[in-house]
Amino acid sequence: MKKIINNPNDVVTDSLVGVAAAHPDLEVDIPRHIVYRATKKEGKVALVSGGGSGHEPLHSGFVGEGMLDAACCGEVFTSPVPDQIMEATAKVDSGAGVLHIVKNYTGDVMNFEMAAEMAADMEGTQVKAVIVEDDVAVQDSLYTAGRRGVGGTLFVEKIAGALAEEGADLDAVTAVAQKVADSTRSFGMALTSCTVPAAGKPTFELGEDEIELGIGIHGEPGRERRALQPAHELAKELVEPILADMDFTGAPVIAMLGGMGGTPLSELYLMYGEVAKLLEDAGVTVARVLVGDYVTSLEMAGCALSLLKADDELLRLWDAPVVTTGLRWGK
Amino acid sequence: MKKIINNPNDVVTDSLVGVAAAHPDLEVDIPRHIVYRATKKEGKVALVSGGGSGHEPLHSGFVGEGMLDAACCGEVFTSPVPDQIMEATAKVDSGAGVLHIVKNYTGDVMNFEMAAEMAADMEGTQVKAVIVEDDVAVQDSLYTAGRRGVGGTLFVEKIAGALAEEGADLDAVTAVAQKVADSTRSFGMALTSCTVPAAGKPTFELGEDEIELGIGIHGEPGRERRALQPAHELAKELVEPILADMDFTGAPVIAMLGGMGGTPLSELYLMYGEVAKLLEDAGVTVARVLVGDYVTSLEMAGCALSLLKADDELLRLWDAPVVTTGLRWGK
Repeated sequence: MKKIINNPNDVVTDSLVGVAAAHPDLEVDIPRHIVYRATKKEGKVALVSGGGSGHEPLHSGFVGEGMLDAACCGEVFTSPVPDQIMEATAKVDSGAGVLHIVKNYTGDVMNFEMAAEMAADMEGTQVKAVIVEDDVAVQDSLYTAGRRGVGGTLFVEKIAGALAEEGADLDAVTAVAQKVADSTRSFGMALTSCTVPAAGKPTFELGEDEIELGIGIHGEPGRERRALQPAHELAKELVEPILADMDFTGAPVIAMLGGMGGTPLSELYLMYGEVAKLLEDAGVTVARVLVGDYVTSLEMAGCALSLLKADDELLRLWDAPVVTTGLRWGK
Repeated sequence: MKKIINNPNDVVTDSLVGVAAAHPDLEVDIPRHIVYRATKKEGKVALVSGGGSGHEPLHSGFVGEGMLDAACCGEVFTSPVPDQIMEATAKVDSGAGVLHIVKNYTGDVMNFEMAAEMAADMEGTQVKAVIVEDDVAVQDSLYTAGRRGVGGTLFVEKIAGALAEEGADLDAVTAVAQKVADSTRSFGMALTSCTVPAAGKPTFELGEDEIELGIGIHGEPGRERRALQPAHELAKELVEPILADMDFTGAPVIAMLGGMGGTPLSELYLMYGEVAKLLEDAGVTVARVLVGDYVTSLEMAGCALSLLKADDELLRLWDAPVVTTGLRWGK
């Protein structure tokens, strides 16, 4: 295992030390693995997300104005624990309530639910939750009942974050988060595995010319293994299952072609070029585009496509200012 | 070779097709491999850079308000050609002259010089050039007489771009670019090689536990090969040669801990945490920090540290708005 780390068991802590050093305007509770905004905005609904580490910039890189109020970083590919989530919830609640944005993995859902109950009981905090389950690749998976939450989580965090920043109440912020979650579909593929530091060896093995279609962001099995094909063929493998699952015509679409951590940006753009042609052929109108590493799986090579069927309101919230280390515009 | 590409010989073209599709507000001359700003600002000094492809977001991702006016994309790890550079220079000149920002590789320097002569002779364009040679690792290298230009190029493009945006003349923009180039030092290391698509195999081989210190951004040999060490030891290998080359105390420093393309963001932050401690111990005051993939080498795993010894004026220009796909703030 070749990694820039100290002790494999300390990678999350050591990485957060670096986040704190690099971004003095963020608060980092290093022992508890919570990244949160330094300034609490009175009366604003607070957004808390989190999950296993290893997907950076998700979620810690999305803490800031116009997006999350706090991110709970679990160990690598491991759910954050209820105490930690409750702590984060209490830290950022300004009295207007807290929305939990939870990717659909059994451990995450359970621990966020327990934290919400604890926060309600112990602090009187009003908590609502939205579950993100955008991955059309598989119905149930290694860590999931139902669909997995993957790249579309970024859309939920950005758009709900923008509405919360405007002063909307908890019901409204929850409703828009749910609407985005319901209108998002994703599909990913891997060219290589990644290595969890504590495991010390690749999560899975792929042959020299083999790819995995429908890969999960923790290296969970997808739909099938296939020989590597040219990008214009691979693009169909991303686009077709998404369009088969939902009709994306007749609305402005927000598209993300995301890297998994180990794919050069030039290849992601190349793939987006192929995807864009297919979407155009299918009558899908792309209104906004992100290309890059946003929801990753350590150093996995591969990519994923996420599409959000938006409307004027969602586009307006998407375009609103966001000031985080992982996503920034408008300020 | 596992890559998301079509024909290995078309990767730059195909990738630019994706850039054009993703960013309709950028102009992309796909056949000539030039990315440039859609709107020419009359009376503004224009900044043109470029070099071999494979280092994205450098340079094409740094075209936009407050940074470059045009980027000339060579084939992967291959200099852009004089005609192409001349074309880009002519496209963006609004009469106030053009600054070429050139990384110090023999082919790049020669081709930018030829292009500048052609632009002067044929179009009457006034062109000045600044050569970036910030890599302290080796004196001469495979493709270089003198030091190589690496990550510090971003500092030059950002700060000179900000001054040009304010309306400064060509002499002033050239002077600030030269000042930044003179005040920047970098050092990198690789954990793995990368594979140039047209070559089809890794540029070099590293043993299972071996790293290369002082690696170039094209996989050129560095100073030495060493066993992989914990991050707190690796950090010394980055920091010490830079501080041995220039005194960074007594001034606000802009630091970049950059990935090479294949290293997870969490490892880059972890490394920055270690680097920050060493800089503090050495009495260096870091005023601004970037952590992430900015000047890459395809999918190489590894990282590089770049330090700029700034002053109030350079900090002000650093903080000025920049609106590019690879670097954005303030707007």
